[in-house]
Amino acid sequence: MKLGERVKKIFDVILAHNELKAEAFLEVLIGKKPLFVCVIGTTETAKIPGISAAGKYPELTDYTPPADVELLLLGRCKCITGVPVTPEGIPTPALITMSAIKLANMPTIVVSGGLKINPRVPFLDLGGKPGGDIRAGETVQNAEEILCRAKIAGENLSKMADYLVVGESIPGGTTTALGVMLAMGIDAKGKVSSSMPNNPHELKIKTVEEGLKISKVEFGALAKNPMKAISCVGDPMIAAFAGLVHGAADKVPVLMAGGTQMGAVLAVINAINPNVLNNVAIGTTRWIITDKSADLKGIITQIADVPILAADIDFSRSKFEGLRAYEAGVVKEGVGAGGAAIAAMAKSEGSITKDTLLREIERNYERLIASK
Amino acid sequence: MKLGERVKKIFDVILAHNELKAEAFLEVLIGKKPLFVCVIGTTETAKIPGISAAGKYPELTDYTPPADVELLLLGRCKCITGVPVTPEGIPTPALITMSAIKLANMPTIVVSGGLKINPRVPFLDLGGKPGGDIRAGETVQNAEEILCRAKIAGENLSKMADYLVVGESIPGGTTTALGVMLAMGIDAKGKVSSSMPNNPHELKIKTVEEGLKISKVEFGALAKNPMKAISCVGDPMIAAFAGLVHGAADKVPVLMAGGTQMGAVLAVINAINPNVLNNVAIGTTRWIITDKSADLKGIITQIADVPILAADIDFSRSKFEGLRAYEAGVVKEGVGAGGAAIAAMAKSEGSITKDTLLREIERNYERLIASK
Repeated sequence: MKLGERVKKIFDVILAHNELKAEAFLEVLIGKKPLFVCVIGTTETAKIPGISAAGKYPELTDYTPPADVELLLLGRCKCITGVPVTPEGIPTPALITMSAIKLANMPTIVVSGGLKINPRVPFLDLGGKPGGDIRAGETVQNAEEILCRAKIAGENLSKMADYLVVGESIPGGTTTALGVMLAMGIDAKGKVSSSMPNNPHELKIKTVEEGLKISKVEFGALAKNPMKAISCVGDPMIAAFAGLVHGAADKVPVLMAGGTQMGAVLAVINAINPNVLNNVAIGTTRWIITDKSADLKGIITQIADVPILAADIDFSRSKFEGLRAYEAGVVKEGVGAGGAAIAAMAKSEGSITKDTLLREIERNYERLIASK
Repeated sequence: MKLGERVKKIFDVILAHNELKAEAFLEVLIGKKPLFVCVIGTTETAKIPGISAAGKYPELTDYTPPADVELLLLGRCKCITGVPVTPEGIPTPALITMSAIKLANMPTIVVSGGLKINPRVPFLDLGGKPGGDIRAGETVQNAEEILCRAKIAGENLSKMADYLVVGESIPGGTTTALGVMLAMGIDAKGKVSSSMPNNPHELKIKTVEEGLKISKVEFGALAKNPMKAISCVGDPMIAAFAGLVHGAADKVPVLMAGGTQMGAVLAVINAINPNVLNNVAIGTTRWIITDKSADLKGIITQIADVPILAADIDFSRSKFEGLRAYEAGVVKEGVGAGGAAIAAMAKSEGSITKDTLLREIERNYERLIASK
């Protein structure tokens, strides 16, 4: 979509899709107390060269999710020096999330779907293991158990806040999301976003097609078997995220904070318990909804009648090149950045704006990166 | 103490010590929203024959804490069949906690200090490992790190509720608590409770003295070094529990739900940050405060000016022998049973009474045990 004058905003939040529902959803959140939940996981799929920019080089992707959540909870990383960066040195969107959490004083819980490296901060363990390489088949061993335990966590967390904001960090996540969507019959080819400026659609499609082939799964064959779709061509984050929403959205609104990967999570929830989707919206960034190399709306409308909100974050006038790069289409979203920004604006009833947020992000950028 | 007519109660909560402070603390909780946190851990110390009754036989103590929290979150155990029992077959106090949580619809979070067997429900991992046998020295390897991470968890959890109720489940816990207290100069010999009707004080003291000797620690030598006290003769639960209270009690009241083990936790917090103890009370059961083989008050008064509340639970007229056994001094407390009962009464503004609680406990007893 193009952002013209006709796009409606509340505070600095764009009602990007399904405007009336989006407005109603956002109205409910104003002044209320959110709980930010960050679901993390890692896979071998992320290490296929060219798939992920969530790490300086492929092997480092194992450290990106734990480092991201350390940044959220501690204000700095412990398992790596500095912060996670793309191969070009552009910093993690966790910088945005952390700034929003700090400004709005939001409580935060980390949930692991399955990790190779554990974060050095408290995290909810669901008994999951890191995912394999989808080209080898059976990438997630215990998707059903992860989903079940995540549902219990979601039920309990829903009693601790007025609403949940759930974000994620899993390198290679748009590829495994594409896998789950194709297995479940959602036409997402060429529609998923990328953290790179040049979206490697061909490589993602080729990778997923190899995964589907070795698992003997045709397009749409697993429309009613989301657990098998995750096991064959997905990742442990999707199972954990879907379980959390499944457990929580019965009781409180849930803002699913992410980009096109949310399509895979939405498809899984839709197959398990479509009723809870009445209490769900997608919260993302302006960079995702203006991304010409992807189509979030085109994915979501195939699945469910869910609104999309987007934080109107703008780095074009930042004094730091590493932040201005976001405007050129690098990174775009992740670690629930858009949703956390929306929640910060809603909680503060608009007193946190895109400008105050940018100033806080720049302060943290300066402290963590520019001074190195 | 003896419970005479002169003991003051609010609802079915006994103001057992430091009456004015206890009353003021309880008043603040009425109608408010608690979060129940259960800290679990296991040690090799618990497997010394005769030390612990938290399991049918010593090796089973590894399964008791995970089974206890499964009961809290699922209403049944998964890692064992039935529920944890003493060697005589008397059921776990988690039955009381679970009933209180259910009646009052309290959100619950499990925190692991270090476990041999993980529960099959979500739990907050702090990077801790199970404790060793204190007679071999260096039982907890990373007490400082567990405490630090627990503090971060406590800070975040304190933003999600009006107050916290923190309970624990760790077999052999009164022995390791005795160890920490003696190392820190608190005269707790002959004062800690037991889950057995005949409190094995001699064995506990002998075990701790062996631990102190091998660690070359004299009585009181570690008064200002609580982390070393935990490392030498403590357990991982104490580090996690103390960190949680340290992180949370700055912001919200914390009800420390347990018996004489709370003395060790209190001593650790008192050495780190005594200020937060103004926002803390101990919540336990009537069985602990009437226990003639132990002296909770005699321990607490050596450490800090903290009030004690006790749930006036009474099983003497229960139709089940396994519950009536509690009146003979078996089990007494654990898994935050007393504190959870107090929170349920306070949250419901007294509409949950000792009688409604007993009926719910009996219903769960019947479903889980009597029908086997």
